[in-house]
Amino acid sequence: MKNCIVAQSGGPTAAINASLAGVVQGVLEHPEYSHIYGSLNGITGILEGRFLDLTETFQSPEALGRLKVSPAMYLGSCRYKLPTPESDVSPYQAVFQFFEKMGIGAFFYIGGNDSMDTVDKLSTYAEKIQSNVRIIGIPKTIDNDLCATDHTPGFGSAAKYVATSLLEIYHDTVIYHLKSVTIVEIMGRDAGWLTAASALARNSYSVAPHLIYLPETAFDAEAFLADVKSLLEKHNNIIVAVSEGIRDKDGNYISASTGSKDNFGHSQLSGAGKTLECLVQERLDVKVRAIELNILQRCGSHIASRTDLEESFCQGQHGVSLAAKGETGLMVTIQRVQEEPYQVSYGASPVREIANQVKSVPPEFIHPKGNDVSPAMLSYLKPLIQGEPALTFSQGIPCYLPVPHLS
Amino acid sequence: MKNCIVAQSGGPTAAINASLAGVVQGVLEHPEYSHIYGSLNGITGILEGRFLDLTETFQSPEALGRLKVSPAMYLGSCRYKLPTPESDVSPYQAVFQFFEKMGIGAFFYIGGNDSMDTVDKLSTYAEKIQSNVRIIGIPKTIDNDLCATDHTPGFGSAAKYVATSLLEIYHDTVIYHLKSVTIVEIMGRDAGWLTAASALARNSYSVAPHLIYLPETAFDAEAFLADVKSLLEKHNNIIVAVSEGIRDKDGNYISASTGSKDNFGHSQLSGAGKTLECLVQERLDVKVRAIELNILQRCGSHIASRTDLEESFCQGQHGVSLAAKGETGLMVTIQRVQEEPYQVSYGASPVREIANQVKSVPPEFIHPKGNDVSPAMLSYLKPLIQGEPALTFSQGIPCYLPVPHLS
Repeated sequence: MKNCIVAQSGGPTAAINASLAGVVQGVLEHPEYSHIYGSLNGITGILEGRFLDLTETFQSPEALGRLKVSPAMYLGSCRYKLPTPESDVSPYQAVFQFFEKMGIGAFFYIGGNDSMDTVDKLSTYAEKIQSNVRIIGIPKTIDNDLCATDHTPGFGSAAKYVATSLLEIYHDTVIYHLKSVTIVEIMGRDAGWLTAASALARNSYSVAPHLIYLPETAFDAEAFLADVKSLLEKHNNIIVAVSEGIRDKDGNYISASTGSKDNFGHSQLSGAGKTLECLVQERLDVKVRAIELNILQRCGSHIASRTDLEESFCQGQHGVSLAAKGETGLMVTIQRVQEEPYQVSYGASPVREIANQVKSVPPEFIHPKGNDVSPAMLSYLKPLIQGEPALTFSQGIPCYLPVPHLS
Repeated sequence: MKNCIVAQSGGPTAAINASLAGVVQGVLEHPEYSHIYGSLNGITGILEGRFLDLTETFQSPEALGRLKVSPAMYLGSCRYKLPTPESDVSPYQAVFQFFEKMGIGAFFYIGGNDSMDTVDKLSTYAEKIQSNVRIIGIPKTIDNDLCATDHTPGFGSAAKYVATSLLEIYHDTVIYHLKSVTIVEIMGRDAGWLTAASALARNSYSVAPHLIYLPETAFDAEAFLADVKSLLEKHNNIIVAVSEGIRDKDGNYISASTGSKDNFGHSQLSGAGKTLECLVQERLDVKVRAIELNILQRCGSHIASRTDLEESFCQGQHGVSLAAKGETGLMVTIQRVQEEPYQVSYGASPVREIANQVKSVPPEFIHPKGNDVSPAMLSYLKPLIQGEPALTFSQGIPCYLPVPHLS
C-alpha cells in the first residue's frame, strides 16, 4: 500500500481547509492508500522534511468537521517558486527522494495559479524520470481566475463576505441626511470576479453598490466623476465597489503603488480606494470615505458559503479518486451542469493548460458602460454564496481548529 | 391616551435597532400609550416634520424580530447639536409645539454622549415651561464610554466582531514561515474599551493579539518597537491591536490627522495603524501590514452578540416603563448583578450626570506595562459577546429590515 501527501500554498481562503478535509477523507476511504501526510508550508515542508502524519488526527469526524470550517491553511503556506529542472534540478531530486523514502504514491497540491505551475513542473519531471508518483492539483483562489473550471474553491466564501459587508455598509451609510460617497476597495489584482460579487448585496430595497469598476475595463477618472455626480442627484449616499487592480487606458494602476514585488514578480498594490477618495474629495463637494476590505474578505470563515465549503471538500475527494485511477498532471475542475436548480459535476483538466493563465471576466458579464456588471454575471454568481457554515462557538467566538506549530 | 415618539442619533451600532424594537414593544404593551411615532434622522425629523407612524408596521412579531437584528438606524441618524435655549429658543419651541400637536406624552432618544446632551437640554426646558412630556435617553455606543452604566448597547456586538476578526486575522497571518507584524486599528477615539475586546480572540492555541495599546496609556514609540522586537524572537507573526486614538505623552495623536472636525468639535482621525506600519517598516527589517477594521466593526450585524441585542431590547422596554411611571431626564442604565452566572438588572440615572462625560478604561483593567489588558478586563468583557443573533438569510445574504426612505 502506498501513502499520500498533501500541501497547501498561496494566499489563504475560507475554503482551502475544506479541500484539505476532502483529500484526507478521500485517502482514509480509499483501500489502496494507507497514510496521509501533510507537508508544512507548502512544498517547502517536503524540501525541509517538515511534515505531519494526519492519518490519526482526522479519524475523528469532529476534527474533520472543524477543519472544514476553519480559515486559512491548517498546514501553513509558502510562496516558493520551483525553478525549472534545467536551471536547478536539486529541489526535484529532493522531492522525489522524499517520496521514495516515505512510500508516497500521490501528492496533492491545493493552491492557485502559482501552485498549479509547481504541479505542472513536478508531473513533467515525474514522467521524465519514470516515477509512478501521481501529482494532482486542487484549485483554490478567492480571485476565481483559474481557467478550465466554472469557479474556484474559496471564491464563493469571499463573495459572500463581500456581499454581506456591502449590504451592511449600505445600512451604515444611508442613515445621514447628507450627500456622501463611500468607496469600497476589494481584492483582485487582474480579475474582477470578487469585486463583481459586491452586486450580490443588492436586494428589494437597495441598489448599492451604485457603481462597480473591474480591472477588465479601462478606468476613466472623468467618466467616474460624472457617474458619481449624476447619481448624487438621485441618491444621498453612493457606494462604489472598486477592484484593487483597476488601471487606466494605458494600463497604469489607479493606485499609489509601493513599487515592491513578491517572489512571483507581482506588483504589491494598495490604494485604489484611497486614490479615488482623494479624487472625489478634490473634485466634488461631498463627504467621502474609502474602506479597504483587506484580508478579512479571504479569511472571514464565520460568513463562509456552505456551497463553497461543500464543493471544496468534494474537489479534494475527487482529486484522490483521480490519483487512485492512475491520473497525474491534472487539476480538479468543477462544471456547472445546470443553473436552476444549481447542479455541478467534478472533472479534471491537464494542469499545463491552466498554470500561468488568468481567466478574466468576459465582456458579456460587464455592463457595456464599464461601471457595473451584467445580469448574466449575477446569475453566474448567485448559487455560489448560498448556505451558511455549520459553526460552533466557544466563549462567543468561532471554534476553529488549532493550527499546528509551523516552525 | 398619549402617544410616544422615538428617534435614533449618532453613529450606527448593530444593536441600536434592538433598542428601537424594545421601545416599540414597550409602547405597544403599555395601556396608557396609544401610537408610537418614529422621528426620521434623529431630532431633526421632529424639527422638520419628518416622521413615521410605527404602530401598525411593528404589530407583526416577524417585522419586530427583523428590526431587532438589523444594523444601523432604521429611523436614520443626525449629528445635530441643540443650542442652549439662552442662545436660541426656537428649536425648543418647535419641538414642544410638535409634541403638543401630536399628543406626545414621552420622547425616547436612543443615542450616545451627544444625544444624552439633547435629552438633558430638552428635559430641563420641559421643566421650565411646565410641560408634562417625559424625556428619556436610551444609551448606545460601540465605544462603551457612557458613565453610570456597566456597559452600553452596541458595544458587545462590536466587541464580538473585533474578537472574531482578530482570531481570523491570526489564522491568516500564521501561515507563512517568515517574520511578520500585523497592526489592526480599532475604533475608539478617547476610550479603549473596543480595542481591549481584541483580547477576547485569545484561546487555547493563540495568544494573539500579542500587544494591545489603548488611548488611556501614553504611547511610547520606542517601547513599542522594543516590545515588537522582543516578541519576534519568540513568535513568527505578531499581531498588534491599536486604538485609533492612541496619543503620546504630550497628548498628540499617533496618526496622520486630517485636521477636520465634526459638528461636535471632535477631531476626525485616521491612520494610527498606518503610522505604526511605517514606523515598523522603517525601524525593523520585517514584513508589516496595517488593517483598519473601519465601519464594519459597528455595522457587522451578521456577527452581533445575542446578549447585546437582548439587553438593548430590554433597555428600550425599560425606558418606556420609566416614562409611564412619570420619570423624566433619565438615561436607562444596566447593572451587573453577578459575574457567574452573568446576570444584570436595569435602572436609570439622571442624564445630567452622564452627558458630556467619558468613561475611560480604569487603570486596573490595563496591564501595568501599558501594552496589554489585565485579567479583570477579560472577566468584564467575556459575558458581553455571548450568543449569536437569530438571523435569516435570503439569496445567501442576511435578511435585514428595509430602511424607510429617509429624505
